Amino acid sequence: MNYIDTSLKVVGTRPIRPDGVDKVTGRAVFAADTRAAGMLWGKVLRSPHAHARIVSIDTSKAEALAGVHAVVTAADFPEIVSEEAFVGEGPMNFRDLSMNCMARGKALYEGHALAAVAATTQEIADRALALIDVQYDVLPHVIDVEAAMADDAPVLHDDLFTAGVDPAPTKPSNVAKVVTFRKGDAEAGFAEADVIVEGRYTTQPVHQAYIEPHACMATYAPDGQVSIHSSSQGHFMVRAYTAKLLGLNLSNIRVNPAEIGGGFGGKTLVYLEPVAVALSRKCGRTVKMQMTREEVFRASGPTSGAAMEIKIGAKKDGTIVAAKQILKYQAGAFPGSPIGPGCMCGFAMYDLPNVDVVGYDVVSNRPKVAAYRAPGAPITSFAVECALDDLALKLDLDPLTLREKNAAKNGTKTHYGPTHHNIGFTAVLDAVKAHPHWKSPVKEGQGRGLACGFWFNIGGESSAQVHVNEDGTVTAATGSPDIGGSRASIGMMVAEVLGVPPTTVRTIVADTASIGFTFLTGGSRVTFATGMAATQAAEKVVEDLKRRAAQTWEIPVEAVEWKDGKAYPAGSNAGAFEPLDLATLALKSPRTGGPIIAEVSVNAQGAGPGFGAHICDVSVDRETGQVTIERYTAVQDVGKAIHPSYVEGQIQGGAAQGIGWALNEEYIYNDKGQMENPGFLDYRVPVASDVPMIEAVLVEVPNPRHPFGARGVGEVPIIPPMAAIGNAIRRAAGVRMHDLPMSPPKLRAALDAASG
Amino acid sequence: MNYIDTSLKVVGTRPIRPDGVDKVTGRAVFAADTRAAGMLWGKVLRSPHAHARIVSIDTSKAEALAGVHAVVTAADFPEIVSEEAFVGEGPMNFRDLSMNCMARGKALYEGHALAAVAATTQEIADRALALIDVQYDVLPHVIDVEAAMADDAPVLHDDLFTAGVDPAPTKPSNVAKVVTFRKGDAEAGFAEADVIVEGRYTTQPVHQAYIEPHACMATYAPDGQVSIHSSSQGHFMVRAYTAKLLGLNLSNIRVNPAEIGGGFGGKTLVYLEPVAVALSRKCGRTVKMQMTREEVFRASGPTSGAAMEIKIGAKKDGTIVAAKQILKYQAGAFPGSPIGPGCMCGFAMYDLPNVDVVGYDVVSNRPKVAAYRAPGAPITSFAVECALDDLALKLDLDPLTLREKNAAKNGTKTHYGPTHHNIGFTAVLDAVKAHPHWKSPVKEGQGRGLACGFWFNIGGESSAQVHVNEDGTVTAATGSPDIGGSRASIGMMVAEVLGVPPTTVRTIVADTASIGFTFLTGGSRVTFATGMAATQAAEKVVEDLKRRAAQTWEIPVEAVEWKDGKAYPAGSNAGAFEPLDLATLALKSPRTGGPIIAEVSVNAQGAGPGFGAHICDVSVDRETGQVTIERYTAVQDVGKAIHPSYVEGQIQGGAAQGIGWALNEEYIYNDKGQMENPGFLDYRVPVASDVPMIEAVLVEVPNPRHPFGARGVGEVPIIPPMAAIGNAIRRAAGVRMHDLPMSPPKLRAALDAASG
Repeated sequence: MNYIDTSLKVVGTRPIRPDGVDKVTGRAVFAADTRAAGMLWGKVLRSPHAHARIVSIDTSKAEALAGVHAVVTAADFPEIVSEEAFVGEGPMNFRDLSMNCMARGKALYEGHALAAVAATTQEIADRALALIDVQYDVLPHVIDVEAAMADDAPVLHDDLFTAGVDPAPTKPSNVAKVVTFRKGDAEAGFAEADVIVEGRYTTQPVHQAYIEPHACMATYAPDGQVSIHSSSQGHFMVRAYTAKLLGLNLSNIRVNPAEIGGGFGGKTLVYLEPVAVALSRKCGRTVKMQMTREEVFRASGPTSGAAMEIKIGAKKDGTIVAAKQILKYQAGAFPGSPIGPGCMCGFAMYDLPNVDVVGYDVVSNRPKVAAYRAPGAPITSFAVECALDDLALKLDLDPLTLREKNAAKNGTKTHYGPTHHNIGFTAVLDAVKAHPHWKSPVKEGQGRGLACGFWFNIGGESSAQVHVNEDGTVTAATGSPDIGGSRASIGMMVAEVLGVPPTTVRTIVADTASIGFTFLTGGSRVTFATGMAATQAAEKVVEDLKRRAAQTWEIPVEAVEWKDGKAYPAGSNAGAFEPLDLATLALKSPRTGGPIIAEVSVNAQGAGPGFGAHICDVSVDRETGQVTIERYTAVQDVGKAIHPSYVEGQIQGGAAQGIGWALNEEYIYNDKGQMENPGFLDYRVPVASDVPMIEAVLVEVPNPRHPFGARGVGEVPIIPPMAAIGNAIRRAAGVRMHDLPMSPPKLRAALDAASG
Repeated sequence: MNYIDTSLKVVGTRPIRPDGVDKVTGRAVFAADTRAAGMLWGKVLRSPHAHARIVSIDTSKAEALAGVHAVVTAADFPEIVSEEAFVGEGPMNFRDLSMNCMARGKALYEGHALAAVAATTQEIADRALALIDVQYDVLPHVIDVEAAMADDAPVLHDDLFTAGVDPAPTKPSNVAKVVTFRKGDAEAGFAEADVIVEGRYTTQPVHQAYIEPHACMATYAPDGQVSIHSSSQGHFMVRAYTAKLLGLNLSNIRVNPAEIGGGFGGKTLVYLEPVAVALSRKCGRTVKMQMTREEVFRASGPTSGAAMEIKIGAKKDGTIVAAKQILKYQAGAFPGSPIGPGCMCGFAMYDLPNVDVVGYDVVSNRPKVAAYRAPGAPITSFAVECALDDLALKLDLDPLTLREKNAAKNGTKTHYGPTHHNIGFTAVLDAVKAHPHWKSPVKEGQGRGLACGFWFNIGGESSAQVHVNEDGTVTAATGSPDIGGSRASIGMMVAEVLGVPPTTVRTIVADTASIGFTFLTGGSRVTFATGMAATQAAEKVVEDLKRRAAQTWEIPVEAVEWKDGKAYPAGSNAGAFEPLDLATLALKSPRTGGPIIAEVSVNAQGAGPGFGAHICDVSVDRETGQVTIERYTAVQDVGKAIHPSYVEGQIQGGAAQGIGWALNEEYIYNDKGQMENPGFLDYRVPVASDVPMIEAVLVEVPNPRHPFGARGVGEVPIIPPMAAIGNAIRRAAGVRMHDLPMSPPKLRAALDAASG
């Protein structure tokens, strides 16, 4: 059923957050809060070298240390055959994943895991690590993406041959893949253009910076049954990857999801779980592992840094006639940057006749990148949206008008293939135009920037259960870890379908043995796909409730209507009966067929793309180069906000992370390829005083493929900030910043250069 | 579908126990093995008096003790209105349950909970208990069931008026209820009898003696969300009772089932969970509680002790023409003995024209009884089966012949109502007759006893899930705690339906939020009812697999057959395709509709009654009165043994408990109504050296109402032992023992009296 045009009582309201109290009172049980009797502590030995052949690893002294129960190296993991699979939020090669969890043959980045120990205390584990003797043959390393593409660059993988080029290369390189999207004839387009803007932009890798470091606890019993507690964006992902990396059956692994303290895409991979299971398998004890913040920085994925070239040509009236982009994305030590979405998202917002995009996926001696909110899109959009602002300035056009003129609409065919349907980009631009922030004059000394963002959103496999309890309250279970309020949104959709208050429904995240397969929480898919499964499960329950009422009244089920949480006789021939509410039907359920339940699994298709536009006012301190965000408004088509407060929270959070990416966050490497700022003192994420109140404006253009019209909302808000801020700086200070972060030293230098 | 006459590959085999390794290696996580950060220890103050008015409870000194976080008394629990409900394995009055968990107004037995504290350590909690000042007004008490029925007995409940009598009484008494079953005209029957036997029998309360004492850990969060870890025979029972006793919504409580270290009916009630939640609610911290063995004895339910009169009349050929029984069952401090099943089960094995049974449910100052394997039946059958042996002796008939002559058959109408269908009692008697033990001569100096047992078994509400994992392995989940091998039996039935090896299926017990309502594990219902739900869920999965194969092959679903874990094209028009196995279909599931799952809830009807007959050879040491069990054979109709080893284990365990009940177990009270033997040194359960190898003989008369023909098997085996041993003693030593336990002092006294 589709509820988009119905009158809703629960969806769209703001009930108290079901996950709120536990989190603010410190009671939520995160992965590190778990203990078990006889538990050991696992710790990882990591490479100090950015690139080195591992000559030998002697673990004998560590093994001999009192209190040490197991030491593992790559020898304790099966060798996995290289095979590309598309799982998670991007391509996944399990051989690479295995070698990222435990280096085999070479250490490919500083922080790469070489061995792990399990010991009775963390202190003994640390001492054991120091006793492991690793002989290295240090190799030349490469950090920068363009340096890694050079002919004479140190090659990370002898068997890596560039994919996507014809003819296929005969010698290995660091370029894993070339992605090409072409629409029309860009060169012909540029020939027709009245105005052309060009630019070269770079971004730095930034970390997802979740507050909770990776942690897990695992037990491998002597009969091969494995239990894992961990914090992740997908406990089914943890199960699948751990099984794959250790050669186990899925039914022998049960993963319990802990409360998650932030993921943002960075917890869509495993780092510790297979290692903890391997240690437990070796010593027969439960093993707990927990990264330090330093380990999180050195060894877990940030998103890519990139170098980009962009060229846009337009007619005098602002009509864009050609666009071209070259994108070089860092993948880290193994292939798999988000170059695909990067090539898709920048130009997908616009109706362009001629487009030429080439992207490179490039390995270098850095930690393997992981997904980070709208993976790849913020990078490309930084270039595109800055270039559009330059174009608007050059054409003396209002930047909003330029975007209105070229905005993608229903029916626009994107350069990467799909045609847009039911999108809300023009509605978002209308909302910008109507917003007081946009209409207000820019304050003296400030500049105002505008930038847009697009994310396609995904659907996929989800399972949900609805169980009516004996007292008529309801439990909903899903397989989706809740990273952004999905317990609230799922429960509300179930409550809406059942016609009961949201407080009647409690939503939980079930473990891998207690619910059907559910793909990970990412791609902004949960409220869409898991919500679809939950809605269908609730509808099955309503059908069952109607059947039971019909049975009770001895009338046909067609003569029963479900409304406001009650069964009513419907139609003139139904007869006169007192309505039966959920509690009454629940109480009578033993006599009408047993417990009232439904479980539904779906592979949801039709996730509606999301569009946003951010308005940002900044002031620039010309003495220090410090940028102050004075006002920030984020407008976004959210399809339908199930629980508007969470949606606003997603938008505010994404914008805040974008502000950090824009102004401060970066990885600083020394000449040995070692990261010099692996901590929150030196890697500076925005704190409360850096960010103004971000106003989130919800535009609701329903997605007809979702029962309530929902679209994914979590990714779009991180896309526009870098360009919005760059454009605001350009207008406030007259300089175009091409390189992220736009930190005080860089801005000072740019101002000096401009005035000199 | 019914698989009774099909060729089975998994059901009936003996795969390795899925719960075995964890238990024998000490890894299984029982309720007491759970810890949480910031956890407090809860302890209970218990009444030293068997019967006392509580004048006052001053908790102020305890509250002031450093380290004490909360103290609760009855004042912290809502007052519940008295209301009879039938839940669990018997009638349940929630007011009584509340007052049993925490005394209100009066302490009704030694050990009755009066207050509880939560403190940072167990030691501080103990000191706090000692600081609670309770003023009592000690009242006269009554322990014995017949003493409690006397007119001048101290009355426990001022508002307890005997139910089931006409006219209704005008003054309160300790007789809670009178149960009457009449068939034909017993007096007329006795008038026709050639021979009459009469007797008076008594039994003592015996404890279930599970090795794991009651334990739980509970958290009440500030927003009212409750989580409980506990060991029970029904986590949905724990949820329901805790909600009822504290006035909570079911959806706000999530109960996680721990591995259970024995229950036998004794864990079908709550004692600690509501107290732990009340403490947590008061102090905001997680509270763990754990009974000592002494507390288990003083405060948790044994089964009833009883006093009984029996009279049986028969023709010379052994045909029974009349039977009469008066049963007086101790309920403990609150109404609710298993008098109902007691009145049903003793005579239900026989085809009797005239029956008169009257039963009394009697309160006294003892702990409230709890269910214990076939609640009520072993008691009544001790009297009936001893009397039948006396009758056989008097008629000079073989005791087996006497039973064959009078055995209930298909079509026999019981005295309590139902007519027997598809029962296997005569098949059991045939198996006794054919068994080498029965055919062997009784050894010199020994006696051989025969006794039978009947339990009706129950069905009820169960939920089960079958989830096919991505690799084609399968997870089955149920809501039934596994007390006797149900993870094995459920997994095997699922494997049989899916056509895969049992190792492919892993069965787990899901928590209350992750599966549909499931009634508790008791009444020998799980393999029957939960097995039915699991079988149906597996069949739904097979239907779905056929649909997906049909979709893959683009042929009608009717042209697909599922066999041996694979889809085959069936019929001449189906076309030629390679079979698709479970793993292939699982791998392709995203493209054929998403994850392959099913959840089914049922209210299973048609549990087949179980019958058993035990043969026991004993020798009696006339010097000491010591009885040695020389040989023991237990024959039972099990319908279909899903995993024969577990079924044999059930039979052996039940017989061993019956041997303890027969020979040693009893509660010894002093004149203050205090139990003097609350520990395993003085309350003597059989140890390995007391029990010979018990041979379990499985007779399989399929129950047509279960897909594989299963009947409950766990209750019957505890019913015959007391009479089988009594009858063996009678034949070995010439004395009829009317009072349990038949312990050395009593037997010595009987031998002395017999020898004059």
